[in-house]
Amino acid sequence: MPVEPSPENKFSFGLWTVGWQARDPFGEPTRAALDPVETVHRLAEIGAWGVTFHDDDLVPFASDEAERERHVKRFREALEETGLVVPMATTNLFGHPVFKDGALTSNDRSVRRFALRKVMRNLDLAAELGASTYVFWGGREGSEIDAAKDSYAALERYREGIDTLAQYVTERGHGLRFALEPKPNEPRGDLLLPTVGHMLAFISTLDHADMVGVNPEVGHEQMANLNVVHGVAQALWQGKLFHIDLNGQHGPKFDQDLVFGHGDVQSAFYLVDLLEHGPLGGGPTYDGPRHFDFKPLRTEDPRAVWASAASNMRTYLLLKERAAAFRADPEVQQLLASGKVTELATPTLAPGETPEELLGDTSAFERFDADGVGARGYGFVELDQLALEHLLGAR
Amino acid sequence: MPVEPSPENKFSFGLWTVGWQARDPFGEPTRAALDPVETVHRLAEIGAWGVTFHDDDLVPFASDEAERERHVKRFREALEETGLVVPMATTNLFGHPVFKDGALTSNDRSVRRFALRKVMRNLDLAAELGASTYVFWGGREGSEIDAAKDSYAALERYREGIDTLAQYVTERGHGLRFALEPKPNEPRGDLLLPTVGHMLAFISTLDHADMVGVNPEVGHEQMANLNVVHGVAQALWQGKLFHIDLNGQHGPKFDQDLVFGHGDVQSAFYLVDLLEHGPLGGGPTYDGPRHFDFKPLRTEDPRAVWASAASNMRTYLLLKERAAAFRADPEVQQLLASGKVTELATPTLAPGETPEELLGDTSAFERFDADGVGARGYGFVELDQLALEHLLGAR
Amino acid sequence: MPVEPSPENKFSFGLWTVGWQARDPFGEPTRAALDPVETVHRLAEIGAWGVTFHDDDLVPFASDEAERERHVKRFREALEETGLVVPMATTNLFGHPVFKDGALTSNDRSVRRFALRKVMRNLDLAAELGASTYVFWGGREGSEIDAAKDSYAALERYREGIDTLAQYVTERGHGLRFALEPKPNEPRGDLLLPTVGHMLAFISTLDHADMVGVNPEVGHEQMANLNVVHGVAQALWQGKLFHIDLNGQHGPKFDQDLVFGHGDVQSAFYLVDLLEHGPLGGGPTYDGPRHFDFKPLRTEDPRAVWASAASNMRTYLLLKERAAAFRADPEVQQLLASGKVTELATPTLAPGETPEELLGDTSAFERFDADGVGARGYGFVELDQLALEHLLGAR
Amino acid sequence: MPVEPSPENKFSFGLWTVGWQARDPFGEPTRAALDPVETVHRLAEIGAWGVTFHDDDLVPFASDEAERERHVKRFREALEETGLVVPMATTNLFGHPVFKDGALTSNDRSVRRFALRKVMRNLDLAAELGASTYVFWGGREGSEIDAAKDSYAALERYREGIDTLAQYVTERGHGLRFALEPKPNEPRGDLLLPTVGHMLAFISTLDHADMVGVNPEVGHEQMANLNVVHGVAQALWQGKLFHIDLNGQHGPKFDQDLVFGHGDVQSAFYLVDLLEHGPLGGGPTYDGPRHFDFKPLRTEDPRAVWASAASNMRTYLLLKERAAAFRADPEVQQLLASGKVTELATPTLAPGETPEELLGDTSAFERFDADGVGARGYGFVELDQLALEHLLGAR
Repeated sequence: MPVEPSPENKFSFGLWTVGWQARDPFGEPTRAALDPVETVHRLAEIGAWGVTFHDDDLVPFASDEAERERHVKRFREALEETGLVVPMATTNLFGHPVFKDGALTSNDRSVRRFALRKVMRNLDLAAELGASTYVFWGGREGSEIDAAKDSYAALERYREGIDTLAQYVTERGHGLRFALEPKPNEPRGDLLLPTVGHMLAFISTLDHADMVGVNPEVGHEQMANLNVVHGVAQALWQGKLFHIDLNGQHGPKFDQDLVFGHGDVQSAFYLVDLLEHGPLGGGPTYDGPRHFDFKPLRTEDPRAVWASAASNMRTYLLLKERAAAFRADPEVQQLLASGKVTELATPTLAPGETPEELLGDTSAFERFDADGVGARGYGFVELDQLALEHLLGAR
Repeated sequence: MPVEPSPENKFSFGLWTVGWQARDPFGEPTRAALDPVETVHRLAEIGAWGVTFHDDDLVPFASDEAERERHVKRFREALEETGLVVPMATTNLFGHPVFKDGALTSNDRSVRRFALRKVMRNLDLAAELGASTYVFWGGREGSEIDAAKDSYAALERYREGIDTLAQYVTERGHGLRFALEPKPNEPRGDLLLPTVGHMLAFISTLDHADMVGVNPEVGHEQMANLNVVHGVAQALWQGKLFHIDLNGQHGPKFDQDLVFGHGDVQSAFYLVDLLEHGPLGGGPTYDGPRHFDFKPLRTEDPRAVWASAASNMRTYLLLKERAAAFRADPEVQQLLASGKVTELATPTLAPGETPEELLGDTSAFERFDADGVGARGYGFVELDQLALEHLLGAR
Repeated sequence: MPVEPSPENKFSFGLWTVGWQARDPFGEPTRAALDPVETVHRLAEIGAWGVTFHDDDLVPFASDEAERERHVKRFREALEETGLVVPMATTNLFGHPVFKDGALTSNDRSVRRFALRKVMRNLDLAAELGASTYVFWGGREGSEIDAAKDSYAALERYREGIDTLAQYVTERGHGLRFALEPKPNEPRGDLLLPTVGHMLAFISTLDHADMVGVNPEVGHEQMANLNVVHGVAQALWQGKLFHIDLNGQHGPKFDQDLVFGHGDVQSAFYLVDLLEHGPLGGGPTYDGPRHFDFKPLRTEDPRAVWASAASNMRTYLLLKERAAAFRADPEVQQLLASGKVTELATPTLAPGETPEELLGDTSAFERFDADGVGARGYGFVELDQLALEHLLGAR
Repeated sequence: MPVEPSPENKFSFGLWTVGWQARDPFGEPTRAALDPVETVHRLAEIGAWGVTFHDDDLVPFASDEAERERHVKRFREALEETGLVVPMATTNLFGHPVFKDGALTSNDRSVRRFALRKVMRNLDLAAELGASTYVFWGGREGSEIDAAKDSYAALERYREGIDTLAQYVTERGHGLRFALEPKPNEPRGDLLLPTVGHMLAFISTLDHADMVGVNPEVGHEQMANLNVVHGVAQALWQGKLFHIDLNGQHGPKFDQDLVFGHGDVQSAFYLVDLLEHGPLGGGPTYDGPRHFDFKPLRTEDPRAVWASAASNMRTYLLLKERAAAFRADPEVQQLLASGKVTELATPTLAPGETPEELLGDTSAFERFDADGVGARGYGFVELDQLALEHLLGAR
């Protein structure tokens, strides 16, 4: 079975994922900090292609220039030794108390300016390390209390912030695109731009909309009990699927960041199918990084961290294999056709047909047999069962 | 207390709301059908300003021309007698079995064409009755099974459908704007364009985006446990709050359509505050209809239907009164200032400041006292308590 | 592969499941009513073992004695012809408007008395048809509004009702046990006794607690985002798993009643494993009916209804097969041991050890190396991946 | 307005509530640690009656005997100086890594024994400080992965643990009752005994069931979107409401621990009404501590911590006032009667009536006018509106 990861799979991991020390709201860390250099080597060993980071993951907050240089140098050497790439970087705008009311949308203007500068600094580093995507997760952009945040003004400031940074990147010639990551809540009670939809809408208002897309995270959409495959399809449809965070979640509760597939595995199957094969009726696939934003369970020791990381890749590849078999199955093809799934790619109007012409087509309305058509079955039941059996490796 | 509804409040109700016969997935109707003419009279009596309808609410599906004329004539006469207006109309694209896999995005092209024609027909009537807004709720546009719907193609068809109808309205000079209404699920397992955010994003892709906005429904956003005030604020910010459906819901469960305020009343308070007074730091208010899309409880008899309808208006007015007091309270104003809530309306950059200039401002980063600023409190706790006490009428 | 259903699998279906006419809150029926006699024959053909019914499924509400006799006779003949058994029956206490505020806990005493009588009548029939379990689903026992229901008194009446009926069954010598089915909401805003836990607690207060257990439904627990495997394990642990309703659901939303496994299939895998093999460290299995309480999708025609029914059984058998392989895998066994999963069956105290003796064991506290033990990993990550791969048929 | 707290209100706070340093999964602390002695004084100043603690809140983990004595002595002196009482204490069985797989139900027997000892030690202290209730919150008793926890055996160990500790307390004559606190998830993916219902069921299996009740937490029930008033009413009905944790939450998401009432304030109103006045049709009230288990927002400075604590009490008292007015309103009384809310306290059977006698009452069934009774309305709509208006202080 082709379930060994290879660079062409474009599997990447954040330093903060395997490096999570397993401190949670009710408990102390269960693992020691990881050296980013060790992480790079271990990721390379298990077959990853890329590594990503927040500024503070690599260079501790408030480091001086010399420390900064030293950290970056060691990291760069590890990249060179292993061949790992840095496809993406991002900014920690949520950990320090200064961001407790937000960063780009903090009520405090001095915090907003500080946040912009913190991002600018790391944009330079990201570009220097060859990243092509820069992620923004607004973990503190929100509120617990509606009276405490003018969410209208906050969107205005959010837009100003992203446009300012886009202008900066453009002027510097950094060659970076931005990918904005939505999340409905946690750590704030309600985060602004809580879903892929809200984020795509926001992007449409930007001066630099062309260079800004989304970074959907599987678990984040599922925290609002939304269908993540639908959300990703909409991003793809709008040409805005710039990056993706893969992981697992069990519905509306705290952010679990489980291993990819270890939640709603049926949805994970359909997601891999979409990314790898594109829409059922044809259309674009996704060719960016498959980035795992997960946390190794707090019960596990350092050894298991790497097994846990490897599970993400293995599960992805297993699902990819099953999705390929699903698509190739003649019975599936037949049901997609008889259920008219593929017919949906056909425009509703005939080529060049105008509304007034449609009005003149009596077959469309006056002579249309609504009851007869309403009685026809679509055969979705069989299709769904076939998909499930492909997932279970039972065909 | 000014809690008697008057026309300037622009309170409106759908025929289907008070007319709901209380049939649910597990039970038979508990009330008889209402005659739309009676509804118009009763709504006028309790102080409503407008009445809205689905095509099939007014003219039963498959009525012939003569029946249609008769129904419309009687309705129009009732409007004239009472002075009620028709600010909005919409199409039933979900009740008949022919729409079981969707209308504008049905897998079956003939259904899509039929759906367009059904809408076109009612657009003419809506314009004729003086409506200025036409709502689209895609109650069947979705799926239970990811394999059964190419959601990418579905968005393509959705766009084609809305753009075709927008073109039709424009060509006919109907003077209607469209308001699209999102919902996360029910009756389909997952609906396409499930939230205000997804809908705004979709609208940004339309040829006729200018004439299309959203119709958020309080309960629909809350079914995904999203903050409806944030969603409405985003719609307002994008200039797309064309209509609104007010009701109540208790979080992620079936669509309850309770009386407005009879769910999360604190959120209802903030929503009324936003609609009436605009963002906390200044900005547009909403001046369209306050449309109640609720269902009188199934336990109630016909008499209570009207008490139930009146409760929506009375609750809205009580909340409006409390919101006005909240805004006028000097202590609130002081806390909004000290918590920097109103500061958020100030741009982050100075007028004309460029990114490179920001880079040169050492007060923004190099000399910024992150720890000191991080230690400052915002005073949101007091602000929230004041808001709650205004809600409770305790100040 | 042994995925053909046989009587020893004890697969049963309700008349109302395949017979669902696909009317939902927003749409008309898409399928005609099914004759119970046809249902019995079709279920037999696809390999089911049992059929279950609500009184009104078999004998329409308000039928006279002669009609009743006729319906029962035809049904009985079908059973005899096919060999299908009736393992369970239940009462429709939710469809008729008279139950709009509840049945056993209606505010109206006359309704409560009527409900008891309706149950008693069907208990006689259930016994006559050889059922051994009688299910109670209190679909209307609840409220939308806290002021409208004294939930304390309601529990008192619920207890009175169940105890009265238990006494009746005992006196008649009917040989029936009761299985109470919880659900968090829908059709009422909040149902009383919303989860397996609340129901088990309620049962502990009954005079006739011995003959009363629970009937958990997979989707109902998942509507509250609870782990259904944990709930079923608790019922098993309390000796109260008298019956089970298998189906699929996608988290907190309206009651979907999807095909078993067509929701959270990983949870379905663990559930089948528990039912078939008992707890991981040993303990009882479940030997009652595997009852599918699902609804064929509304998009489907009558033909697909039976394919849909068959999918439930096939999915169950596939999961059973995978669970057996999981249990038999030596690597799994090794990880269960090293992760101490099986150690949990060992009592914490030594045989006969008293609290005071534990207090004297300095190895338990004074000399216990909390940091050292806290640093040990459990290896759950590998165990979970093995389970997932067994589910995917990848081992 | 009588909204000043006094000792007879029995308001209590945990050291960990006001003492929360505002570290969350994504951010560092924003406030310094509080000295328990200061906390006692500040709580006394704002009008609290009691203070509660986890062992480790008062005496840091792994303190030696001398340190322990010193901490306890200072605390005791503060209690004496202020008159504050210690109504309840509890154990931290979740913070240290040793508990990462649970405490009483850890897979590791040595951890289970250590946990028992840790509890025993603090039970002695609780008794010494005069507590009458001891709370157990099993924050780590659960799993993320079904294969990693034999939940059947876990319940067996849970029972063994609680019974062992109950025996210890009895033997020592400590005069403590136990109150078990359920929570559906967080920090574990799924916690065992996730709701009030599951916990009550578990208690029914204990050898020492008499001395064990529940400690419901408002937000915990709401994390599963359950009606907390119903859950508390069931606990009261089963005679098991031994303690209560009051706070606020916005539905199924991470555990927010907001100020009481700052979430679903309508539900908070009904909860206070139940606690203060008992069931609508009569029955017991709750006379134990009103314990606030909340977290001051992370945005706030130390000063606001105390304002935040005071808000809990003030909101409770405002709701109490409104609930009293609601109960006293003649119009409410009339609607409770006409809607038969109070009729529900009347048994369904006549005194001494047997099932067979009910069978003979033709008015109950044969002559019962189901359609007529089904058509009657209950008037819940008006009742609900009255309740809302009392909440809003509008009557």
